[in-house]
Amino acid sequence: MSASLALDRLRIVLCETSHPGNIGAAARAMKTMGLRHLLLVSPKVFPAPEATALATGAADLLSEAQVCATLEEALAGTVLAVAMTARERELSAVASNLAEAAREAVAWTVRGQVALVFGTEMSGLSNEQVLRCQRLAHIPTDPQFSSLNLAAAVQVACYELRRMALGEVPPAPRGFAPASSEEIEALHSHAQKALIDLGFLNPARPRRLMPRLRRMFARARLEQEEVNILRGILAAIDVLVRRAGAGQPRN
Amino acid sequence: MSASLALDRLRIVLCETSHPGNIGAAARAMKTMGLRHLLLVSPKVFPAPEATALATGAADLLSEAQVCATLEEALAGTVLAVAMTARERELSAVASNLAEAAREAVAWTVRGQVALVFGTEMSGLSNEQVLRCQRLAHIPTDPQFSSLNLAAAVQVACYELRRMALGEVPPAPRGFAPASSEEIEALHSHAQKALIDLGFLNPARPRRLMPRLRRMFARARLEQEEVNILRGILAAIDVLVRRAGAGQPRN
Repeated sequence: MSASLALDRLRIVLCETSHPGNIGAAARAMKTMGLRHLLLVSPKVFPAPEATALATGAADLLSEAQVCATLEEALAGTVLAVAMTARERELSAVASNLAEAAREAVAWTVRGQVALVFGTEMSGLSNEQVLRCQRLAHIPTDPQFSSLNLAAAVQVACYELRRMALGEVPPAPRGFAPASSEEIEALHSHAQKALIDLGFLNPARPRRLMPRLRRMFARARLEQEEVNILRGILAAIDVLVRRAGAGQPRN
Repeated sequence: MSASLALDRLRIVLCETSHPGNIGAAARAMKTMGLRHLLLVSPKVFPAPEATALATGAADLLSEAQVCATLEEALAGTVLAVAMTARERELSAVASNLAEAAREAVAWTVRGQVALVFGTEMSGLSNEQVLRCQRLAHIPTDPQFSSLNLAAAVQVACYELRRMALGEVPPAPRGFAPASSEEIEALHSHAQKALIDLGFLNPARPRRLMPRLRRMFARARLEQEEVNILRGILAAIDVLVRRAGAGQPRN
């Protein structure tokens, strides 16, 4: 299944949100990560100018947002619901961390709609709300200061959902044309000759100079254009060496 | 190394932030993930009541925040700096995604201080600022709507840093002592002078030569010993230039 189809099957459910600005910021957070479906369970104030202001370019998600009377209504038609929580909970000892939960949530989109459920700014989800969900997940914050803003929690959760939906396939290395091994070898030969002419490399006692340069350039994974620049610098050294009538080592 | 020690070696650098509220929200985002060191390069307004209000319980990070005149100052003493960017960039084709960058950043904390660098709300980092960093990373957003709020970007980045610090602790990068940002800047200054003396760099028409060299050496993440070798080569060029009585551009 494509990443965008998976993301289109994810819902963000916000329960009894107090501050409409958080609803707007959550919509923006969702949209940056390619999620569209926002459901609001009994929001204190909605719609609200503050929500629209903080949504910036994501006002479309707000106008399409579904306002529900109960969490049950918001979860209708889902195949999996994940309760997001910061607190330790007596009833639900088996909380997974966000990354695991996001992986499972995305996996379940193959079967249907999946919801991530967030509680109020002050006290999170009630135990009853948690029990309506099949999973419990927490965002691993510093135990000394776990005060994640609601929209920040939605942002981090949507980031993980997108990361999982796109798969951990590392992108192909982009950029300019990599230098061929022949070009790199020619560079090293040229550099060796120029360093001898400069009196910097003593062929009778080369120590580890060339291997060290090799190692440094290997880490950089040189591009063709960069080899051309370096060869140009070496050619300028050649010219100068001839002009100076040098060639003998300094020491 | 423990997770908390790794997190204590991470800096968040915000460049020329326009809205003090974003600075406060970024401080809160950092503290939830266990990061403490905030550096502000030429903030428009700071300190500011709006910053303190949005920091909520993280006002201590604001009062300890270091205000710097330049990015160079904010990066002093770091062994790795990661430029956070949303835009595609001509020169810096090799952007990694956030997860890869966070993994590398945490790995480098074994060697010293590491910085994540964020640009302005409107236009991000300048190309010159990006070139002061050794890595470039982007948060994978929806290409249709990539408008991440600054504090949201800091939140997601700090989440990944914490996840990596707590998690699969990456193997420490091996090798010799990494060069400091000061040593690397001194290398670039020396190189620029030597290339002008060689007649390879025309100061009246520098084109993109120095930025390209910066980018190449940034990828290599230079070691102290390598900087010493390169400075030695440059010094040998200086000697030769004097001997040849050169100094004028070739063309």
